[in-house]
Amino acid sequence: MKKHNFYAGPSILPEYTIKNTAEAVLNFAGTGLSVMEVSHRGKEFVAVMDEARALFKEILDIPQGYEVLFLGGGASTQFCMVPYNLLNKKAAYLNTGAWASKAQKEAHLFGEVVEVASSKDANYNYIPKGFSVPEDADYLHITTNNTIYGTEIKEDLDVNVPLVADMSSDIFSRPVDVSKYALIYGGAQKNLAPAGVAFVVVKTDILGKVDRPIPTMLDYRTHVEKGSMFNTPPVLPVFAALQTLKWLKQQGGVAEMQKRNREKAALLYDEIDRNKLFKATVTNHEDRSLMNICFVMNEEYADLEKEFLDFATQRGMVGIKGHRSVGGFRASTYNALPIESVKALVEVMQEFERKH
Amino acid sequence: MKKHNFYAGPSILPEYTIKNTAEAVLNFAGTGLSVMEVSHRGKEFVAVMDEARALFKEILDIPQGYEVLFLGGGASTQFCMVPYNLLNKKAAYLNTGAWASKAQKEAHLFGEVVEVASSKDANYNYIPKGFSVPEDADYLHITTNNTIYGTEIKEDLDVNVPLVADMSSDIFSRPVDVSKYALIYGGAQKNLAPAGVAFVVVKTDILGKVDRPIPTMLDYRTHVEKGSMFNTPPVLPVFAALQTLKWLKQQGGVAEMQKRNREKAALLYDEIDRNKLFKATVTNHEDRSLMNICFVMNEEYADLEKEFLDFATQRGMVGIKGHRSVGGFRASTYNALPIESVKALVEVMQEFERKH
Ligand SMILES: Cc1ncc(COP(=O)(O)O)c(C=O)c1O
Ligand SMILES: Cc1ncc(COP(=O)(O)O)c(C=O)c1O
Ligand SMILES: [Mg+2]
Ligand SMILES: [Mg+2]
Ligand SMILES: [Mg+2]
Ligand SMILES: [Mg+2]
Repeated sequence: MKKHNFYAGPSILPEYTIKNTAEAVLNFAGTGLSVMEVSHRGKEFVAVMDEARALFKEILDIPQGYEVLFLGGGASTQFCMVPYNLLNKKAAYLNTGAWASKAQKEAHLFGEVVEVASSKDANYNYIPKGFSVPEDADYLHITTNNTIYGTEIKEDLDVNVPLVADMSSDIFSRPVDVSKYALIYGGAQKNLAPAGVAFVVVKTDILGKVDRPIPTMLDYRTHVEKGSMFNTPPVLPVFAALQTLKWLKQQGGVAEMQKRNREKAALLYDEIDRNKLFKATVTNHEDRSLMNICFVMNEEYADLEKEFLDFATQRGMVGIKGHRSVGGFRASTYNALPIESVKALVEVMQEFERKH
Repeated sequence: MKKHNFYAGPSILPEYTIKNTAEAVLNFAGTGLSVMEVSHRGKEFVAVMDEARALFKEILDIPQGYEVLFLGGGASTQFCMVPYNLLNKKAAYLNTGAWASKAQKEAHLFGEVVEVASSKDANYNYIPKGFSVPEDADYLHITTNNTIYGTEIKEDLDVNVPLVADMSSDIFSRPVDVSKYALIYGGAQKNLAPAGVAFVVVKTDILGKVDRPIPTMLDYRTHVEKGSMFNTPPVLPVFAALQTLKWLKQQGGVAEMQKRNREKAALLYDEIDRNKLFKATVTNHEDRSLMNICFVMNEEYADLEKEFLDFATQRGMVGIKGHRSVGGFRASTYNALPIESVKALVEVMQEFERKH
């Protein structure tokens, strides 16, 4: 039976990435060796790292003055690296979910933290607006896509202080005006690569302004200076990231991804709204994530939740159980998910509706 | 032409690891999905993580009271995590090479550092002995195998303070009396897995004794509590590590590895000693590494260095160029390197000798 991969992360990757990585595990760049057993200083991998960085810049249209880094440790390590490198006195955080609030927690170790707004009161089911940011904040931290709650900031904010964004779960899903950000980071395991590598896009002139000493590996300048090769980078995840970047370019880049992601999301949200059994947890349409679509049973049908999960699973739907803090269902519709998978899920929802 | 992989790291892995990983990239545990695109919370990967931890403990014969962690970020991140978690007032470091000295450098950010001995005076070509460790040191840090210089501490030291060891390049190469260590760590990209995961073996009762606040991701307790699943672990590198652990067990474990590694090293050191063209950089036999075998041209033949490198490369030897701080050649003979590769190198050395 065909599987439809709706996992929230690690999550579906393009066939192109999977096929090329499987090949490279057996024979990398004609070396006769596996990509898992070649030196990161060999010319073949140095070429991969250089091309990955260059393509990342090209596809996201990154202006001069920024560097792209590939680091180990996941997005969670960035939660402390950001304040370690950027927080001198005070930082502002927008609390839109579990990840946003974990990022905020780390900042407390490094200085004063101002929460500019929070949607915690409503289980994070909307994006707060109209908040103001203290002018003397070293930066404002936002989480553009809230993977757990299915809300998304789909436009680049204009703010009066340097803007730092966790884009773990919506990187490359739409065009981004990078010039509005001081730093963008994320775990690569949603729209880019297998787990094990984080990406950082950093405006280099914001670095070097804090007084504290920074451990070498946590200092962005280390990795900027050494082109992400200060120590052994996660070779295979970076190789796989390059494959996805090539695929992205072939497919038409982020503008095309945005178009497809809008189509997929419209299809599924429309069905959720229409179908008598289900309702979306995010009611404010403009806040609805194009990447993680959360829905629950309508009150009258609450006892059908388990039955629908089994019903859908038996029909090839994978990873649609909602996160425990929201319940219900979550269908993640990342770049690599074909519209056919969304259509298959919609059909399953309709078939289930007919049964009840 | 058959390639012989002597890379220092990332380096040769067992065929078993490569084959099983290539298969899992296409279809993981019968899921029909790639190991690169499944949730780390899915039962299939949770089983991988559990089995990897259990086998790691079994093969290294780890006593009660210790935990095994798989973390992102590489061994270099451990250079700061160790003092962050363990250094209250003072730490002792044995300086046996570039990595040892990088580890030591990070400790200065956290307290007083005592260098108990150093072989820097002789370009790190021996292991200092007979040093004494301050009784009030929070720990002594050693690097058991010095990947760059080819020296190795092949026995477990008895010391009067908690012992911390970087075993990046000799983990699983011999039996270790883990009870003599408070913490063992390393990048997995030599004897265990592809780059992108570090292992940590920690005696849990040494944690929680420092006063400073520790960022969540840098706190070993976070990962002990969550079984290395606090955040998304490097899924594919952990999967590959499990394959190598299974292979290790099949082959007879670390005692068998030690036997093979001794045979391989004896073969190559004997040839280096015998051959008129070459000499070993580590003259003290007991300090000679079984993992990284460094040699240079004898003075009279110094101008043949480039010619030998080309000669050997043309005959399938990969990664034998020495590190720039030592020059000459380095043949890394990790667990997965078959004795046939060492024999092939020895033949190439003899053939080259006959030419000159
Ligand atoms: C928005 C967001 N930020 C951060 C993280 C944490 O990433 P990691 O597991 O790589 O630390 C996640 C993981 O799902 C996420 O969705
Ligand atoms: C003994 C030793 N320690 C530490 C490191 C650094 O490891 P990583 O590149 O994973 O940070 C190396 C890398 O070769 C090493 O050989
Ligand atoms: Mg969230
Ligand atoms: Mg409805
Ligand atoms: Mg060294
Ligand atoms: Mg000789």
